[in-house]
Amino acid sequence: MEFKYILVTKPSDYVAHVELNRPNKLNAFIPQLWIELGQAFTQLSTDAEVRAIVLSGAGERAFTTGLDVVSAAEYSEVMANLPDTARRAAYMRRHILEMQASLNAVERCEKPVICVLHGLSLGLAVDLACCADVRLCSSDTRFAVKEVDIGLAADLGSLARLPKLVANHSWVYEVSLTAREFNATEAQAVGFVSHVLPNKAAALAYGLDMAAQIASKSPVAVQGTKELLHHGRDHPIAESLKYTAVWNAAAVQSDDVQSALMSGLNKTKPHFAKL
Amino acid sequence: MEFKYILVTKPSDYVAHVELNRPNKLNAFIPQLWIELGQAFTQLSTDAEVRAIVLSGAGERAFTTGLDVVSAAEYSEVMANLPDTARRAAYMRRHILEMQASLNAVERCEKPVICVLHGLSLGLAVDLACCADVRLCSSDTRFAVKEVDIGLAADLGSLARLPKLVANHSWVYEVSLTAREFNATEAQAVGFVSHVLPNKAAALAYGLDMAAQIASKSPVAVQGTKELLHHGRDHPIAESLKYTAVWNAAAVQSDDVQSALMSGLNKTKPHFAKL
Amino acid sequence: MEFKYILVTKPSDYVAHVELNRPNKLNAFIPQLWIELGQAFTQLSTDAEVRAIVLSGAGERAFTTGLDVVSAAEYSEVMANLPDTARRAAYMRRHILEMQASLNAVERCEKPVICVLHGLSLGLAVDLACCADVRLCSSDTRFAVKEVDIGLAADLGSLARLPKLVANHSWVYEVSLTAREFNATEAQAVGFVSHVLPNKAAALAYGLDMAAQIASKSPVAVQGTKELLHHGRDHPIAESLKYTAVWNAAAVQSDDVQSALMSGLNKTKPHFAKL
Amino acid sequence: MEFKYILVTKPSDYVAHVELNRPNKLNAFIPQLWIELGQAFTQLSTDAEVRAIVLSGAGERAFTTGLDVVSAAEYSEVMANLPDTARRAAYMRRHILEMQASLNAVERCEKPVICVLHGLSLGLAVDLACCADVRLCSSDTRFAVKEVDIGLAADLGSLARLPKLVANHSWVYEVSLTAREFNATEAQAVGFVSHVLPNKAAALAYGLDMAAQIASKSPVAVQGTKELLHHGRDHPIAESLKYTAVWNAAAVQSDDVQSALMSGLNKTKPHFAKL
Amino acid sequence: MEFKYILVTKPSDYVAHVELNRPNKLNAFIPQLWIELGQAFTQLSTDAEVRAIVLSGAGERAFTTGLDVVSAAEYSEVMANLPDTARRAAYMRRHILEMQASLNAVERCEKPVICVLHGLSLGLAVDLACCADVRLCSSDTRFAVKEVDIGLAADLGSLARLPKLVANHSWVYEVSLTAREFNATEAQAVGFVSHVLPNKAAALAYGLDMAAQIASKSPVAVQGTKELLHHGRDHPIAESLKYTAVWNAAAVQSDDVQSALMSGLNKTKPHFAKL
Amino acid sequence: MEFKYILVTKPSDYVAHVELNRPNKLNAFIPQLWIELGQAFTQLSTDAEVRAIVLSGAGERAFTTGLDVVSAAEYSEVMANLPDTARRAAYMRRHILEMQASLNAVERCEKPVICVLHGLSLGLAVDLACCADVRLCSSDTRFAVKEVDIGLAADLGSLARLPKLVANHSWVYEVSLTAREFNATEAQAVGFVSHVLPNKAAALAYGLDMAAQIASKSPVAVQGTKELLHHGRDHPIAESLKYTAVWNAAAVQSDDVQSALMSGLNKTKPHFAKL
Repeated sequence: MEFKYILVTKPSDYVAHVELNRPNKLNAFIPQLWIELGQAFTQLSTDAEVRAIVLSGAGERAFTTGLDVVSAAEYSEVMANLPDTARRAAYMRRHILEMQASLNAVERCEKPVICVLHGLSLGLAVDLACCADVRLCSSDTRFAVKEVDIGLAADLGSLARLPKLVANHSWVYEVSLTAREFNATEAQAVGFVSHVLPNKAAALAYGLDMAAQIASKSPVAVQGTKELLHHGRDHPIAESLKYTAVWNAAAVQSDDVQSALMSGLNKTKPHFAKL
Repeated sequence: MEFKYILVTKPSDYVAHVELNRPNKLNAFIPQLWIELGQAFTQLSTDAEVRAIVLSGAGERAFTTGLDVVSAAEYSEVMANLPDTARRAAYMRRHILEMQASLNAVERCEKPVICVLHGLSLGLAVDLACCADVRLCSSDTRFAVKEVDIGLAADLGSLARLPKLVANHSWVYEVSLTAREFNATEAQAVGFVSHVLPNKAAALAYGLDMAAQIASKSPVAVQGTKELLHHGRDHPIAESLKYTAVWNAAAVQSDDVQSALMSGLNKTKPHFAKL
Repeated sequence: MEFKYILVTKPSDYVAHVELNRPNKLNAFIPQLWIELGQAFTQLSTDAEVRAIVLSGAGERAFTTGLDVVSAAEYSEVMANLPDTARRAAYMRRHILEMQASLNAVERCEKPVICVLHGLSLGLAVDLACCADVRLCSSDTRFAVKEVDIGLAADLGSLARLPKLVANHSWVYEVSLTAREFNATEAQAVGFVSHVLPNKAAALAYGLDMAAQIASKSPVAVQGTKELLHHGRDHPIAESLKYTAVWNAAAVQSDDVQSALMSGLNKTKPHFAKL
Repeated sequence: MEFKYILVTKPSDYVAHVELNRPNKLNAFIPQLWIELGQAFTQLSTDAEVRAIVLSGAGERAFTTGLDVVSAAEYSEVMANLPDTARRAAYMRRHILEMQASLNAVERCEKPVICVLHGLSLGLAVDLACCADVRLCSSDTRFAVKEVDIGLAADLGSLARLPKLVANHSWVYEVSLTAREFNATEAQAVGFVSHVLPNKAAALAYGLDMAAQIASKSPVAVQGTKELLHHGRDHPIAESLKYTAVWNAAAVQSDDVQSALMSGLNKTKPHFAKL
Repeated sequence: MEFKYILVTKPSDYVAHVELNRPNKLNAFIPQLWIELGQAFTQLSTDAEVRAIVLSGAGERAFTTGLDVVSAAEYSEVMANLPDTARRAAYMRRHILEMQASLNAVERCEKPVICVLHGLSLGLAVDLACCADVRLCSSDTRFAVKEVDIGLAADLGSLARLPKLVANHSWVYEVSLTAREFNATEAQAVGFVSHVLPNKAAALAYGLDMAAQIASKSPVAVQGTKELLHHGRDHPIAESLKYTAVWNAAAVQSDDVQSALMSGLNKTKPHFAKL
Repeated sequence: MEFKYILVTKPSDYVAHVELNRPNKLNAFIPQLWIELGQAFTQLSTDAEVRAIVLSGAGERAFTTGLDVVSAAEYSEVMANLPDTARRAAYMRRHILEMQASLNAVERCEKPVICVLHGLSLGLAVDLACCADVRLCSSDTRFAVKEVDIGLAADLGSLARLPKLVANHSWVYEVSLTAREFNATEAQAVGFVSHVLPNKAAALAYGLDMAAQIASKSPVAVQGTKELLHHGRDHPIAESLKYTAVWNAAAVQSDDVQSALMSGLNKTKPHFAKL
């Protein structure tokens, strides 16, 4: 996979590292970056060489500062040329759905995604992090659900996902309505991230290590676990139990169970076929 | 707006302060208070002069101690005169739905509501606080989901809302099943409130300041954020993303975006048209 | 109720204590234990002599270590004799649904269930604990969502219930995807348990005391509270409010309200009729 | 109840007849008519003297031809004075929700509503008829989901309700997308109305007779039946069964069961207490 | 399977015939019949010798006339001895849920159920028929949703299921609110039954023949089809498509596909392994 | 748009005609046809030159006979090389989801789709027709939900969509469980198609004429109508009303309303801007 603004590397067996790679622009999003992000995760989703993914931002200063202002200006110009409000709204709706689709590719990726945040992590940074399965950050991370400050309600997923991911609704509403910054300590206290590391390098190392651990497990078990947790989050319990039974009726019929049991007894490293 | 048991003031630009105002009765609810509470929030919902609301209880001793016993006695008398169980149940169902509707007016109010609790905050106090967007309290607050102690399951919203608002289901079930009191520290630890202040005055000041901050932002952005967070809480993610795209297709076409951007560059205070 | 692997005792008025009782096998589950667990909770659900239940594991070393390997081997043999994948999947689906049904009996039990965990609490231990209303543990408890390590996605409810019960989705995904152990402190920090006690005896005493408190309340109020919290967890708020009004339209017409009020005034212990 | 554009009469015991009463304007809707329609059905919902309702349009020519054009022009003027698209959209959204709320009052009315259509029954006529429980018409009725012809998608409920009420989705989409008229025969063939009568007088007589029959039954049974059918339409079966059990747990404890049984045996007319 | 009031026979290969067998009492339901009905269908659900089921009523006069009045009297007596409304409601709720559970066993039976109605088919007859997959009747069948006439809303499933099964909501509300009888022709016109035969014998023969046809097909295909149609009825399309893909991922891996294809080419009768 | 097995033409203003174009193979589906079908409808969805679409099958003998057997054989070969059941199931699940995605492109196409069926219309033909908005057919059409006959439950949408689209569930289950053929008359009687024409040419002419009518209307109104009917089909009424209000808040602000009104008054043909 070769991209211009997304860098995909393979730091260890079955682990992919995806970086937002426009560091001199603080990884601000332009149209090409949106497209590449969606493509990368769509491909990784069924890439049998990958079993766990780390997502981070290149450079020292920012995970991402959100939408590039140049990019926003372009859309405005298109809008200005449309004949009426109904057609401008249709254009804008399609455009928002496209951007959401890029982020959904992260959430729907069949392989677990660990997001490592650092530095400026504003607006779209939170939208994107909400699509990952695990969130880690460095202690210098500066978070904000920033959109209210530019006259908008966030529309790329933070408001849809935060009330489900995080403990404390009073806090979720507070940071979303005031657009105030919050730091790593606060992010961990409310359960938005599960670990804070001293700096970006440490956070990335921690994330890559967790990815390597996950990648060493049965991919049938790991990918099923992600799918079923996603289902559990969005469905009543009775629904999820039924779906789980149908899912595992086939998934338990793998060679991995035997491999895992034997290697557990023999203290060897199990081998699992591709998925 | 003139009410008898509800006091509405305007402490700063675009901020309304709503007080339960029966302090000599510890703000216990009687039918007239129910009616006025619903009316006040229904009116504030579309009052273009208001962009954020603080809700608190008058007096030093209590936010509210719940339903006034006198009031409960009146309902019993009506019930006693009905001919059979089916008709008493129909009467009671309509009556519960009416009280719920008053509280729903707080939740559905298009403007954000910050609830500031203090002192005795029992039973109905929790039902009411669950309808606000942000919850703050003073350190002396004494909370309880008290209904089990009077032979009832809480029916005004605590049991419907707490499992969604708060982190820790084990704790939610525990306090709801035992009716035991919990204090401000515990309320913050489990995420029921997002800040604890030393006393009522400090809590109210903090709440009014937060309201002022919110009121200084674009009302299009703020009201959209509340609506979309509410939607996110009650729908699967895919549903909310779609709704968000349709909502923002029109909402992003405001003058507020330009005002917000320009005042950000010029370090001036933006002006936003009414909503 | 007489069972072989489940021990049911009555430690105090209206309190039942249910123990997984295969301590020499670390309470690992075999088919007979599954069956008895479901039967016990189905009977307790409508046993008018019981108003609160404590669930724990016999012996010092484990709440439970999960599925007995002998048991798993038996299923494999049945599977091997089936003619094709479709039929093996149908067999396995029915089998998973049966095991889920046993655990659902705990969740659906009309009486509150307090789960007290200690020692090894692996795999199925988490599935089972998720079905209780309140979770307590001793400080030596060693938890793990262990299934990924044996090549499986957990299919007995942890993945369906954890995203709803616990604050911190990043943590939920992390422990489910890595299968790593977590201890009592971590379990409390994320809100999986609401109290940690120094050892099994203390945890059990705490649980039995909480059960006794709940059992001293109106059973109409307590059982209604459990039902409505369950409904709140799995439905949109508007749905639950409506259901609540219909439920309480009959439930408030009990003698318990009067008994509770009078005993509150007279400082006496109220008496409540059976339910 | 005294209204200007709504006429409410009591043609027989416990039966109310509600007429859209602007016949010289073909019962076209103006703001005052909207308001009165909502008020009338809200009051009838809990009026113990009413057990069944017939809804029809005054005059020979039309049930209703929809929104009065004068009325539409007024809204346009308000819109023109608003500063930006976001605020115009907010105004319009609130306005649509208000009109929907008037129609919802028909659907939510606790008493059954039989809608009798005749003559011109265009646009809003279909929206309104969809809110009734039973639909009858005269053979001269001219129906159309007319909105597409004036550049709009219907927004007062036809598109939300028709796919649920009517058999034939291919037909629903066809008439909604083409805005073509359909007649009484076609309306009956697809199941939109259950009976066609030769003319308005006959249709009204049929409807009033059906209302009288319903009004002679137990109001507990009738109002419960409407509530549970509404629930069944909008929920999965398992949900509705559970709700039904809770509903009837109180409703079956009426004197009506005894009265109905006795009068059945004695061939007398039962008497039922008010509801 | 030996029952007292339910007769189960095997008229042809892989076909079971279940009869309500209290013909001298017009197959009215007493507690033992409820219990046996649930047991019969629960056992047939996983009986590998059965692939399709016909359900009918013994005797010439009735499919069933509903709840036996003797039975209803017994419940009343229990109710009268309970101390308050809340406890009577709890008793009644549990009782309704038990009766619903017996009928649900028909709906949840993994094998298709063809219901053949004839003669008196009142009240419970409609509830029960709604749980079958296919409905046939003889031309003399007299149907009614009869409950309103005895002062009750139907609570055993008709009101939950009819709005989903039948085309014409206006008709569904009409017959449910008036309790009037409808005949076979009307039942077919609105889509409640799919075929009307001249008499009971012909209807039964038609049903048994259809069952034999279904029983000659792949049981993997047939049972999957029933499961997926049930899912489609109760879920949004996107949900059902996803569930379908997971279900068939295992189910298509059967020997039946090859058997079916080969026997299609060779014009022979395929053999399918048990399920 | 140039495709190999899909032919797209523009028979009149703003109307596209999409043909399955493998007539010598009875339009049986091979992988390339799947891909092209999805691409064609995805492109047409936002093609401003298209406002209504007719979908039919080339040749005289068949709309389509379903999956090409050659194609099925290829998948079998891939399956055979996978190491275990879990991995074969994962492969198959992804494959089914891909095929469903092609059909979903028809359903999600923003422009209305009129499906014209003729001749052999088996299996996949029904799945595909269910994705269209309107269904027409010639009198010689031979329909079947054929999958059970080849040992499969239909997995491309018929079982998810038929219970929603068609009146008569008894019939839906019957034809799905028996795989028997049904003809045009029966298809119209149960509401699967809304019109039957004497032959393919007449059916196509009728469909193209209906498309032309739709294409002459406001595209804002038409596309909104399709979107809102789809929403109504899959959501509770209250949900759809809210969504409708948000949707139309922008959509009513079009120039089309004025154009439609003026051309109505002036009896001229309105002009609508592209969408």
